[in-house]
Amino acid sequence: MNVFIHPERTKWKDLVARPEDDASAILEKVREIVGEVRRSGDEALTRFTKRFDAYEGSLRVSEEDMRAASNSVSLELQDAIVAAGKNIERFHAAQRTDDIKIETQPGVLCGTRKVPLEKVGIYVPGGTAPLFSTVMMLSIPARLAGCREIVMCTPPGADGTIHEAIFFCAAQFGVTSVFRVGGAQAIAAMAYGTETIPKVDKIFGPGNRYVTAAKMLAAADGVPIDMPAGPSEVAVIADAEADPEFVAADLLAQAEHGTDSQVILITDSKELVSSVREEIDRQLVNLPRREIAATALGNSRAVVLESVNAAVDFANQYAPEHLIVLTRDSESVSRQITNAGSIFIGEYSCESAGDYASGTNHTLPTNGFARSYSGVSLDSFQKQITYQKISRKGILSLGPVIETLAEAESLAAHKHAVTVRMRAAEISSRAMAGGNDDSV
Amino acid sequence: MNVFIHPERTKWKDLVARPEDDASAILEKVREIVGEVRRSGDEALTRFTKRFDAYEGSLRVSEEDMRAASNSVSLELQDAIVAAGKNIERFHAAQRTDDIKIETQPGVLCGTRKVPLEKVGIYVPGGTAPLFSTVMMLSIPARLAGCREIVMCTPPGADGTIHEAIFFCAAQFGVTSVFRVGGAQAIAAMAYGTETIPKVDKIFGPGNRYVTAAKMLAAADGVPIDMPAGPSEVAVIADAEADPEFVAADLLAQAEHGTDSQVILITDSKELVSSVREEIDRQLVNLPRREIAATALGNSRAVVLESVNAAVDFANQYAPEHLIVLTRDSESVSRQITNAGSIFIGEYSCESAGDYASGTNHTLPTNGFARSYSGVSLDSFQKQITYQKISRKGILSLGPVIETLAEAESLAAHKHAVTVRMRAAEISSRAMAGGNDDSV
Repeated sequence: MNVFIHPERTKWKDLVARPEDDASAILEKVREIVGEVRRSGDEALTRFTKRFDAYEGSLRVSEEDMRAASNSVSLELQDAIVAAGKNIERFHAAQRTDDIKIETQPGVLCGTRKVPLEKVGIYVPGGTAPLFSTVMMLSIPARLAGCREIVMCTPPGADGTIHEAIFFCAAQFGVTSVFRVGGAQAIAAMAYGTETIPKVDKIFGPGNRYVTAAKMLAAADGVPIDMPAGPSEVAVIADAEADPEFVAADLLAQAEHGTDSQVILITDSKELVSSVREEIDRQLVNLPRREIAATALGNSRAVVLESVNAAVDFANQYAPEHLIVLTRDSESVSRQITNAGSIFIGEYSCESAGDYASGTNHTLPTNGFARSYSGVSLDSFQKQITYQKISRKGILSLGPVIETLAEAESLAAHKHAVTVRMRAAEISSRAMAGGNDDSV
Repeated sequence: MNVFIHPERTKWKDLVARPEDDASAILEKVREIVGEVRRSGDEALTRFTKRFDAYEGSLRVSEEDMRAASNSVSLELQDAIVAAGKNIERFHAAQRTDDIKIETQPGVLCGTRKVPLEKVGIYVPGGTAPLFSTVMMLSIPARLAGCREIVMCTPPGADGTIHEAIFFCAAQFGVTSVFRVGGAQAIAAMAYGTETIPKVDKIFGPGNRYVTAAKMLAAADGVPIDMPAGPSEVAVIADAEADPEFVAADLLAQAEHGTDSQVILITDSKELVSSVREEIDRQLVNLPRREIAATALGNSRAVVLESVNAAVDFANQYAPEHLIVLTRDSESVSRQITNAGSIFIGEYSCESAGDYASGTNHTLPTNGFARSYSGVSLDSFQKQITYQKISRKGILSLGPVIETLAEAESLAAHKHAVTVRMRAAEISSRAMAGGNDDSV
C-alpha cells in the first residue's frame, strides 16, 4: 500500500483519481465485431464464438441441458442460492412504489404509471470465476418488475459447457432463454437482434473491456445499459478502534477481483495503517488468488487524515462503489456520505454480504460514477409513463395560462389546440346549464 | 398526410420507423469543439461564442442583468409562469418516495437513501422560439430534489441579450448561475468544467444536432444526460367520435415545432381521416409557422386500422413521445398503453397542457426510446445509495450462506472476510453469555 499522511486538501484530487482507461485502442475492433453481427446475425455469432471461445454448436441452450446441469449443483450450494435469493427478492420487492395520481388544480389530474421493460438482456462474463451471483442480482429484480423476456448470454467453454450454478440460477430466477455467446458479439446480438437472439430493451451485466466498449456503443445508439463500468472498488473508513483483521480482510476481498481493483483505506489513525499492513501480509499467504491481490494492493492507497470527518469528505470526493464504515458511531458517519454505490455499516457488515446474500444489489457504479449514478434497483427494469386527464372545468381554468405561455413561446398552434377546447368547454358548460358532470 | 388503410401487421415495422439520422457527419466537428473546450476552457468558449453567436463579452450573466430583464416580463406572463410553476411543483413533489429500510432476515438490515445530485446543468436552446418552459421543467424538479447548484447555459444574441422570460424563470425557480454559451461548446463546458463554468454531475435539456451529439459524447465519457434526443413526436389515437377540429389542432401543434416533427394519426375510422384533413387545411392558413407545419405534415402518416385495440398495438409498437387518446372510454384505452412518454386522455387534455402548465414534465423520450426510457422526473435529479447493517446474530445466521456462495465463485478472500467476522461474533456471543445486545 502507498501511505499518505495528512495530505493537503488540494492534493486529494490526485489521490481520488482512477487510472485512465483509454478504450480507443479496442474501439475499432469492437465496432467491427458489432457491425458484423448487425450485418450477418447468427452467422457472425457462430464465427466469433468459434474464434474466441473455440466452441462450435448450438447457440441456444436447451431446456434439457439447463435441467441436467442444474441438477448437478450440490444441495448445499442450491440451499445457499435459494436463501440469498429470498433476501434479494425481499429487498427489491420493498422498492415497489405506488403510482401517483394527484389533481394539481381542480379538474387537472396528473399521474404516473410504472411499466416493466418488456425484454431485458443479461450478460454474464466467463473467465476465472463463475459469476452466478450476477444472474441472481439481475434476474431477480427483472422478474419482480414483470419483464416478459429475460435473455441471458454467457461465453461457453470449448465443449459448450457453462458452469452449472449459472444454469441453476437462470432456471431458479426466471431467465427465459440462455445463449452460448460472449464478448462484444453477445452485446451486439442483444442490442440489435439476430435470427436466434432477440433484440432487448436494455442490457445489463459486467464484462471485460470489449464487453464494456460494446455496451457503450449500444448506449450511444439508444439501447440503454445498466451503467458505464470500470474496475471494482472499495474504500474503507476506519478509526483506531477498528479491528485490523477485518480491515485487512476487506481490502484483500476487493483486491482479489483483479489486478486493476481499486482499494483505499481512509483513517485518522497511523497505528491502524501499520497493523492493517501486518494483517494483510499475514492473510495474503493463505489466499489462492494472492498474486492478483498483491498486485492490486501494490497500487492501493492508505490515506491518514486528521479526523473521521475529513475521511468522510475524502470518501465523498472519491465516490467509491463500495464503502465500508468501521468507526465508532458508524451509523452517523454513514449518514454523512453523499457519494457511494453501497455502504456497509459497522463491524459485521462485510462487503461479501452485499455481494451475495444480504439483499442489496451488487451492480453498482464504479470509477467515481457514484457521484451521478445509482446502482441497479427494481426501477432499472421499469419505465414510468406520465399521463393527464383534464376536465371541462379544468381546461376552463388552466386554459388561459396555457394560451399565454404558448403565445410567449411563439407557438400559435400550441395555443390554438387549447383555444378550440376552451370554446367547446364553454359551449358544453352553457348547454349543461352549470351541471356538475365534471369529474376527472 | 400519407394515408395507410388497413396495413398488414408485417408492414407496421416500416410505418413506425423514424427517419435515420446519421450523426457521424457532424460528430468530427463536435469532437473538435469539445476537445478545444477541454484544452482551452474559457478562451475556447469565448472564441466559439464569437464565431457562432457573434457575441463578445462576459459569459456569466450578472444578477443585475437578470433582475432588469426579469422585471421587463409582462405581469400577465409572470402570473402564467407562476401558475404553471405551482402545478409542476405539485406534481413533482408528489413523486417523493420514502427511503426503504427492511430486515431481509433477522439481524440483516438493508436500506436505501436518496441523495440529490450536487450540481446539474441545464441547456436552453436559442433559435426561433424562446423556450423558457424548458427552464421551468428542469429547474423546478432540480430545486425540489435539493441540487445545490443549477447551472444554465443558453446562446446569447449578438448583443448578449437572452429572452427576458428565460431570465425570469431562471430567477423564479432557483437557477444558481446563467452563462451566455450555446451549442456543443456549452455542453462541453458543463461536462468538463472551465475556469468560469463548473463541471456538473448530469446534463439536461434539448438542443440541435450539435448539442445532441455533444451530449452523447459526454454520456459515453461517463457524464450522464437526461436522455438521447430526437425530433419531437405526437401520436393521436382517435375513433369516429373524436372531434376532427381537436385532432387537427393537435397534429398541427406538433407539426409547428419543426420540419422534422413526427406526427401520426391512428384511427379505426376512414371518415375521421377525411374530416381531419379538411380541418388541417382550414386551420393551417391562420398559422404563423404554417410553412414549417405543412412540411412536417407532408411526411406525416394517418393509419386506419380495424379497431381501437389494433390502434393500441400500433401505438405501443411506435412508442411515441406524446400520445393523445381521443376515443370512447379513453381512460381504459390509455391503460393498455405500455410504450409512451406521456399520455393525454380525453377531449380536454391537449398536449400543450403538458407542455406548459398541467404539472407533468415535458422532457420526454422520442425516437422510440419510450420503449426503454422514462421522461424526466424528480428521480432524474437524485441518486439512490443502498446500505446494510448486519448484527452479530445476523452474521451468524447469514454467514454460512455467504461463505458457500463465495467459495463456489472461487473468491477465497470474499469468504475469509465473512469467516473472521463469524469467529469474532461467536467469541462475542459467548462473552455476552447469550446477552441480547443485538439490535441493528
